[in-house]
Amino acid sequence: MLSLNSCIEIINKEFDLLKAEPNQPAELYKPIYYVLDLTGKRIRPTLTLMACNLFSDDISAAIKPAAAIEIFHNFTLVHDDMMDNAILRRNQPTIHAKWDYNVAILSGDAMMIKAYQLMCDIDQELIKPLLDIFNKTALAVCEGQQYDMNFACRNNVHLDEYIEMIALKTSVLLAASLKIGAICGHAPEQEAEKLYQFGLNLGLAFQIQDDYLDVYANQDVFGKTVGGDIAENKKTFLLIKALELAREEHALILQKAINNEIPDMLEKVRLVRRVYDELNIAQVTKDKITEYSNKAFEFLQSVDIEDTRKMLLLELAYDLMKRKK
Amino acid sequence: MLSLNSCIEIINKEFDLLKAEPNQPAELYKPIYYVLDLTGKRIRPTLTLMACNLFSDDISAAIKPAAAIEIFHNFTLVHDDMMDNAILRRNQPTIHAKWDYNVAILSGDAMMIKAYQLMCDIDQELIKPLLDIFNKTALAVCEGQQYDMNFACRNNVHLDEYIEMIALKTSVLLAASLKIGAICGHAPEQEAEKLYQFGLNLGLAFQIQDDYLDVYANQDVFGKTVGGDIAENKKTFLLIKALELAREEHALILQKAINNEIPDMLEKVRLVRRVYDELNIAQVTKDKITEYSNKAFEFLQSVDIEDTRKMLLLELAYDLMKRKK
Repeated sequence: MLSLNSCIEIINKEFDLLKAEPNQPAELYKPIYYVLDLTGKRIRPTLTLMACNLFSDDISAAIKPAAAIEIFHNFTLVHDDMMDNAILRRNQPTIHAKWDYNVAILSGDAMMIKAYQLMCDIDQELIKPLLDIFNKTALAVCEGQQYDMNFACRNNVHLDEYIEMIALKTSVLLAASLKIGAICGHAPEQEAEKLYQFGLNLGLAFQIQDDYLDVYANQDVFGKTVGGDIAENKKTFLLIKALELAREEHALILQKAINNEIPDMLEKVRLVRRVYDELNIAQVTKDKITEYSNKAFEFLQSVDIEDTRKMLLLELAYDLMKRKK
Repeated sequence: MLSLNSCIEIINKEFDLLKAEPNQPAELYKPIYYVLDLTGKRIRPTLTLMACNLFSDDISAAIKPAAAIEIFHNFTLVHDDMMDNAILRRNQPTIHAKWDYNVAILSGDAMMIKAYQLMCDIDQELIKPLLDIFNKTALAVCEGQQYDMNFACRNNVHLDEYIEMIALKTSVLLAASLKIGAICGHAPEQEAEKLYQFGLNLGLAFQIQDDYLDVYANQDVFGKTVGGDIAENKKTFLLIKALELAREEHALILQKAINNEIPDMLEKVRLVRRVYDELNIAQVTKDKITEYSNKAFEFLQSVDIEDTRKMLLLELAYDLMKRKK
């Protein structure tokens, strides 16, 4: 019987196989395994394995594509961290911080190719449909990252643009993880597509919840500093919604905040949060999260498979949406 | 009848099709087409089309894979130029110089994915063999670049290591371009492999000739400064061979040169070149170039196809080896 832990184990075992290859020159491959060994939650490959398991008791066909998706995801983190100048990831130094920028560029490139190599290690008749989704998704993730960087320099981001950005940057890969798993389990196209929509909506709910927690999480359980997004003027669902609703005094405070005219960060966070409170942004945000997660669960519900087989995916999705950090 | 010019035209037309797509966000796609529009010689996709044409009058199946290879090649240039801090490529600013590093990272990534997308746009039964070669080759190119960077920090590079490095960094992609074309033309595996070996050896000859010209080209026709590799202590075939043969005074001069103990660059180039001359490095190098190019032509000769069909490839190969710059 598949479980969250057994999925993680399967993926880690796959990475152990890769580690046993020659992997020369070491300067190229060492950083790759360093990143893959950082304890991530392996959410995406787990989704792939579980989606396959919905339609087939034999999940072996999904293992390499699942590992491919995890490597691809980690490749995006390596290059994104460079672009964002982030020196920590999962509390450990990022590749460019531990080694240097050149290592991060090239090891990242090699990770993407490794991902493709694993994705192709599958029955001949599955390659084309898998790669069609994977290529489209991989390009979408790049587009999402570019929109995200564009938005950092813009103060007039519309909510629709924001949703499109997080869909591209985050949700499509979750959605593709599920659809690829379903295809490996020989699911009918229509059922695989329902899982794609489940993942897409779950991803949107998850990302908006991320924005919500950054402002409203309990600092005691939240890993990062509450209010970090406000301090950095990040265009989150909350800020964009508040800018949309704000009039007069509220609009003035938000403008001062994003124009960096409130030098004291604690004061800035306090003021913006008060605007959010007075505009009832928390509730509006929670409603949106509920809307997307309900939509997600409806899609999962509609998959034409007995309910007992869906328990694992349901549980994982609930866990993701229940988190407080 | 296929010609060098018609091959270039076919590839450029394929890029025009890509340019006509939505390509949003523009910040991601504009740099991609900027790079693809710089007038490269399109050698690799030309090899692909010509290799296909050896076995089939209909080369249409090879067009998208050929374009894929050219995009992949340009992706490696974008990321390599970043790693090498090169601000010019084909006399135009590189992406990171014209835009910035983040643009170069992300547009490069997107180019690699675009390459895969085009490579998959082929008959179902060809995808697996094509991608097997392409994945292996793409990874080899990364490994070659890493070895190249490693060698910059080492003064004890062995000639075998050097040949392995240039094979990975340059030759395997030329070889794969030919083999992929042959496969698209439904060549028997054994004939496709001969073309691979033709490309591999031609690439080695070409690269060593590159090293040779940097020292012995006529400055009037050579695009770059003659002696640039010596000035930069680049581990070329000539330097490695000279270090291998040098004794006493010669060894002393080479050591002083690579330890940057000859501050006057013209003097450094003059002294190292004198060592090369006295050790007869030019002849040793020319012999090696001849050895590899002869081997290349033997492989092309052995391809089981009437000679008239091989004329175009032969001509292109001769042109490559005849160049003075």
